[in-house]
Amino acid sequence: MGKFDKIRERVYRCNMDLPRRGVVVYTFGNVSGIDREQGIVAIKPSGVDYELMKPDDIVIVDLDGKIIEGSLKPSSDTRTHLVLYKHFPNIGGIAHTHSTYATAWAQAVRPIPVLGTTHADHLTAEIPVTEVMPDEMIRGNYEEQTGHQILETFKKKSYEEIEMVLVACHGPFTWGITPEKAVYNAVILEELAKMAALTLQINPEVPSLKQSLIDKHYQRKHGNNAYYGQK
Amino acid sequence: MGKFDKIRERVYRCNMDLPRRGVVVYTFGNVSGIDREQGIVAIKPSGVDYELMKPDDIVIVDLDGKIIEGSLKPSSDTRTHLVLYKHFPNIGGIAHTHSTYATAWAQAVRPIPVLGTTHADHLTAEIPVTEVMPDEMIRGNYEEQTGHQILETFKKKSYEEIEMVLVACHGPFTWGITPEKAVYNAVILEELAKMAALTLQINPEVPSLKQSLIDKHYQRKHGNNAYYGQK
Amino acid sequence: MGKFDKIRERVYRCNMDLPRRGVVVYTFGNVSGIDREQGIVAIKPSGVDYELMKPDDIVIVDLDGKIIEGSLKPSSDTRTHLVLYKHFPNIGGIAHTHSTYATAWAQAVRPIPVLGTTHADHLTAEIPVTEVMPDEMIRGNYEEQTGHQILETFKKKSYEEIEMVLVACHGPFTWGITPEKAVYNAVILEELAKMAALTLQINPEVPSLKQSLIDKHYQRKHGNNAYYGQK
Amino acid sequence: MGKFDKIRERVYRCNMDLPRRGVVVYTFGNVSGIDREQGIVAIKPSGVDYELMKPDDIVIVDLDGKIIEGSLKPSSDTRTHLVLYKHFPNIGGIAHTHSTYATAWAQAVRPIPVLGTTHADHLTAEIPVTEVMPDEMIRGNYEEQTGHQILETFKKKSYEEIEMVLVACHGPFTWGITPEKAVYNAVILEELAKMAALTLQINPEVPSLKQSLIDKHYQRKHGNNAYYGQK
Repeated sequence: MGKFDKIRERVYRCNMDLPRRGVVVYTFGNVSGIDREQGIVAIKPSGVDYELMKPDDIVIVDLDGKIIEGSLKPSSDTRTHLVLYKHFPNIGGIAHTHSTYATAWAQAVRPIPVLGTTHADHLTAEIPVTEVMPDEMIRGNYEEQTGHQILETFKKKSYEEIEMVLVACHGPFTWGITPEKAVYNAVILEELAKMAALTLQINPEVPSLKQSLIDKHYQRKHGNNAYYGQK
Repeated sequence: MGKFDKIRERVYRCNMDLPRRGVVVYTFGNVSGIDREQGIVAIKPSGVDYELMKPDDIVIVDLDGKIIEGSLKPSSDTRTHLVLYKHFPNIGGIAHTHSTYATAWAQAVRPIPVLGTTHADHLTAEIPVTEVMPDEMIRGNYEEQTGHQILETFKKKSYEEIEMVLVACHGPFTWGITPEKAVYNAVILEELAKMAALTLQINPEVPSLKQSLIDKHYQRKHGNNAYYGQK
Repeated sequence: MGKFDKIRERVYRCNMDLPRRGVVVYTFGNVSGIDREQGIVAIKPSGVDYELMKPDDIVIVDLDGKIIEGSLKPSSDTRTHLVLYKHFPNIGGIAHTHSTYATAWAQAVRPIPVLGTTHADHLTAEIPVTEVMPDEMIRGNYEEQTGHQILETFKKKSYEEIEMVLVACHGPFTWGITPEKAVYNAVILEELAKMAALTLQINPEVPSLKQSLIDKHYQRKHGNNAYYGQK
Repeated sequence: MGKFDKIRERVYRCNMDLPRRGVVVYTFGNVSGIDREQGIVAIKPSGVDYELMKPDDIVIVDLDGKIIEGSLKPSSDTRTHLVLYKHFPNIGGIAHTHSTYATAWAQAVRPIPVLGTTHADHLTAEIPVTEVMPDEMIRGNYEEQTGHQILETFKKKSYEEIEMVLVACHGPFTWGITPEKAVYNAVILEELAKMAALTLQINPEVPSLKQSLIDKHYQRKHGNNAYYGQK
């Protein structure tokens, strides 16, 4: 058994979860996972249909993007993933989708406000949207610049408390301590995006959730005295 | 066979109905059932994925929330359930979901008006929304206070005629004489919430259903001379 | 083999198509078929879950609503069906659903305008909505009056050209020369209702389809020189 | 094995993809493929339900619409397909659907603006909508005129860069170098149409995507130095 088999199999299963959970069509989207000890990232190959993808198709690259193992080209978004892995030292996985509602908010260039406790259960702040990329960045290494746009957005935010972002005019990136958590966040984000759009349709004047409720829900799941779940 | 096996199996099946009916994703939501003779409540464990949950994972607690049987922690919403069981003496089951449209109305802090006979077939009044919880209640036992918020909302309403509520900024709770009825009400509420949002999108000026039609539809299903169904 | 076995089996299959096509949840909705030679109508039993229904549960009634064969009570909407069978002599089946978008239009008390050729492929006019039922009719035999409300709406319309109606504040009834066609029309109506709601969301000022296009599409499917389909 | 077996089987599979991908109900929609060497087009028969269709039902016609092989009548939209094959020499397949969101935009008589990179990944311009057909064209050979309306719309556009169009008040036609690509484009168009409607609901004032981002995304998939996918 090769030394990358385990992460390859795991990242494969995470990628396959995207169509099963309804957040991608055709070849859209990709999940990666990092093995920080071995210094490698496992990522979906570029433009391969989920129905045809096999575990062996997952590509292993180093942190500079050099292919270490695999006969296919890695996702064209690989450089975005690598920038995030380098600057967010505590994450273990990243997911990128074009899921319908999250992408609509990204295209609307609007952060998703905290409108209820479903949102607050997962993060204490609005889901941020990056700036629209300036032309000089587009002309550079576009995918790497997408990573830098995300870093810029998180300059004064914690990537450990807010595990998701909307890239303006593009779509969502989510991450987490594992690739599974990154996929979970991609699905949750889509649900939050849909709920928020419907809430504002029903009551366009509704204010954001008040801070005391945001804090309470987040703390019961993630605080020092968290009492949600089995841990 | 243990004395809680029957209710545990039944509450398990009710919980499994939530993802099957499309009203929850991941670990969101929970169903409980009460055995008033034995003085116990069977409820979903906290934060366990539906795909992995087994009947034995259902937790048995007494009416003070003490675990009577089960190796997992009960749902973090258990105290809300217990408050309702104590004050609504004729209910046998409770369901809590974050279903998309019902949650959107809860987040919009808007009661769902009676706009048609589908609604009137199930209840004679708008689906109430609680007040947004004041900060001093949030700082107390939050889940117990959620129960009290619901009781406050039902001060002048009948919990037997209106088997559902929207907790402001949070989501729906539904109940019924059995856990199965509570789940049924959760699914119906989601459908009523969707229909109402669409109705107001098509005609924002539409008035509520007139009282004579509300009464007629409710009576034909639930009145003394009810003639809907096989009873 | 009994003399009603064939129509019972056929009406059973038509009823089972409703949940399969996504136009009903739980026990909502019902389909009936008429055998005009034998003078009987086969119809879904009242309040029976589709998942549990068997062909033998279909009830056979005469045109006055008397049960001829079957151990269950017929649908509470039976009298509405019977009124339509009496006054629309060329129909062979009727379907009633609470499908989401069609019901939203019914609740909005708005006819569905002809906005495109998908609509014109099926009917040449807007899908009519009845008047809201006056209180004296509600106090009478409600389901029979629902039938009369529909007849009133069709006073100056052809039930053979327009095989569907929205009962105000209630939901859709559809019919056709066979029960299968009635079900087909129920599914098509839901799709037309959804398309129309979305069209008006995208462009609230869009006018109805012009008459020449309505005529062309309807004629190519249903006119004397129809050239759609294999007949 | 007959000389048309291969294209017949292929066009059959492409047609079956339409309901599987959720872009048609009942008999709506059709896919064709052309064999330019043999001078024939394989196309779905008219009004046949997908659930009943067999590969042998696919009809082979020549470029004048004469049936070469097949016992069924070809799709009533055949003449539209033939006009496009004649004037778009590099396409190999065409798909026509009444998919919900794309049809809503067609009915709204609005082109779909480029609002994000999901759109730009596939085409560099808004998805055009034809003029509403003038009455004299409707009175002529309607389906042939539909083809001419599309040609008119592409007078100053490249059918190779924009592989889709909304026929005003009707619905979408998509094409590509193969029938598979035409189906892919039909599914993508529906997703773009849904995203665009939601984006404008969330932010009605959002401008179109800026040209530099449109170019970047299109070039990375389709330009001379394209680096998306495995080619």
